[in-house]
Amino acid sequence: MSLVTVGTVAFDTIETPYGKAERVVGGACTYISLAASYFTKDINLVSVVGDDFPEEELKYMRKRGVNLDGLQIKQGEKSFFWAGRYHDNMNKRDTLDTQLNVLADFNPILPESYKTAKYLMLGNLTPEIQMKVIKQMKKRPKLIVLDTMNFWMDIAMPALKKVIKKVDVLTINDEEARQLSGEYSLVKAAKVIHKMGPKYLVIKKGEHGALLFEGENKFYAPALPLAQVFDPTGAGDTFAGGFIGYLAHTDKVNFANLKRAIIYGSALASFCVEEFSINRLKGLKKSEVNARVKQFVKLTKFDI
Amino acid sequence: MSLVTVGTVAFDTIETPYGKAERVVGGACTYISLAASYFTKDINLVSVVGDDFPEEELKYMRKRGVNLDGLQIKQGEKSFFWAGRYHDNMNKRDTLDTQLNVLADFNPILPESYKTAKYLMLGNLTPEIQMKVIKQMKKRPKLIVLDTMNFWMDIAMPALKKVIKKVDVLTINDEEARQLSGEYSLVKAAKVIHKMGPKYLVIKKGEHGALLFEGENKFYAPALPLAQVFDPTGAGDTFAGGFIGYLAHTDKVNFANLKRAIIYGSALASFCVEEFSINRLKGLKKSEVNARVKQFVKLTKFDI
Repeated sequence: MSLVTVGTVAFDTIETPYGKAERVVGGACTYISLAASYFTKDINLVSVVGDDFPEEELKYMRKRGVNLDGLQIKQGEKSFFWAGRYHDNMNKRDTLDTQLNVLADFNPILPESYKTAKYLMLGNLTPEIQMKVIKQMKKRPKLIVLDTMNFWMDIAMPALKKVIKKVDVLTINDEEARQLSGEYSLVKAAKVIHKMGPKYLVIKKGEHGALLFEGENKFYAPALPLAQVFDPTGAGDTFAGGFIGYLAHTDKVNFANLKRAIIYGSALASFCVEEFSINRLKGLKKSEVNARVKQFVKLTKFDI
Repeated sequence: MSLVTVGTVAFDTIETPYGKAERVVGGACTYISLAASYFTKDINLVSVVGDDFPEEELKYMRKRGVNLDGLQIKQGEKSFFWAGRYHDNMNKRDTLDTQLNVLADFNPILPESYKTAKYLMLGNLTPEIQMKVIKQMKKRPKLIVLDTMNFWMDIAMPALKKVIKKVDVLTINDEEARQLSGEYSLVKAAKVIHKMGPKYLVIKKGEHGALLFEGENKFYAPALPLAQVFDPTGAGDTFAGGFIGYLAHTDKVNFANLKRAIIYGSALASFCVEEFSINRLKGLKKSEVNARVKQFVKLTKFDI
């Protein structure tokens, strides 16, 4: 089924204890779209770049089935840039530089062919831009998934809450769920967040896995214990992309299928962290993805 | 099968955001033995108290099938006492007071009937005392489980490593696994710790569940998401007690059965945190335990 993906397409400079990568391809929408492309080919990207973004990277995305009609390329301008350094344990990072560039006055314009898509993935961006995309849809999509972060809770909570009200699935981390709800217990936080709008809540806990809530229904997916996390950048976006890509492909929106989508999203994310940038997500084989999904089954299975 | 449990029997004063409990019953061996008593009745406790420890509490333990022949009651002396205060999020606590009292010169003496037990659970105590217990066993138990903490790694690492060498299962939390192994990745930490002796490693992650390692075999058990954690004191000991109690009852030491034991231990621990002290562990019904185990099945089940 048709999927619209929204978010940044950008450059990152990343330092981890294992190395440094300068001005490599990054951005939420890049990770989301590539991850989704392992499940569905009708992907329609909405984003903006400057004329510094390499044509071969765009070509690669098209090859993976990502329609770039909704990508604005601003001549004489620069793409969004982020630089960060991870601490030794990879769970914390410092932002060293943020250059909004083309993102500063980004006005998303959806091509006509996008406006009837059944699945909409709103990657992390200002709530205003996310709302502008929702409003351009001619028909309410079957499923809208929203990813956001504490930054928008800090500076734009009212606008964020308006967007949250309009979506079916919210994906945030545990600290963000606590901040958004004002509740420490994630069970209580989920109740508060359900009342804000989303029927489903996905709480991403990094190395501790992910929790899915739908009213009284709960599902706990582990993360795969890894010998080495090389670079966690984009893992959350890759998770979201795998999640919505699987749902768009299977076209079933119910708790049992969302559980499967979480496992596929987690599997894709476990590849993402193995190398810098989108390197590991390029040219992954379907058999590799399936083998990793089987590892999740093995990791969680027990018989009582 | 016969089980020997070793650890403190003590008093705690606990402050949480939800209330305060003064000089209530606590101690690793108390929690371990009570949790184990839901699975097996041949429990043989090794510990020490002063003459201030209430006879009715000892009577209750005997009623639950705990043999107290190995409990030394020191006349004119006081029981071990710990006071602590939990922070708002319950994940951190400050120790306000520690009075060793009878524990200062505790010399564990095993009654003859204990010395051929098949299962041995060494609760958190000085490595020297844990070693003294192992040495008194006439026959090497079928399974020795060791629980310890960062405190002993800080001040008695060489003695601790000697005990670790002699056990089959080590239960520690994720930070302790990192400290003990010098590896941040838990997969790498498990490899290092296996080489120190234990065939099995259980990494307790509190609200994030528990990981079991046996060489290349891995199992991730979630913790039950709870609406409220009232008092976390004793949760780790209750987990260990449920774990070894289930193993002693089923008498099968293999990866599949250790997985089940982790689920039963986690279920018992989820009760422990609902009230102060051992209150919730008293008079729990078998049907309540089984209902909670079913919640773990529901929480983790997915079909690919």
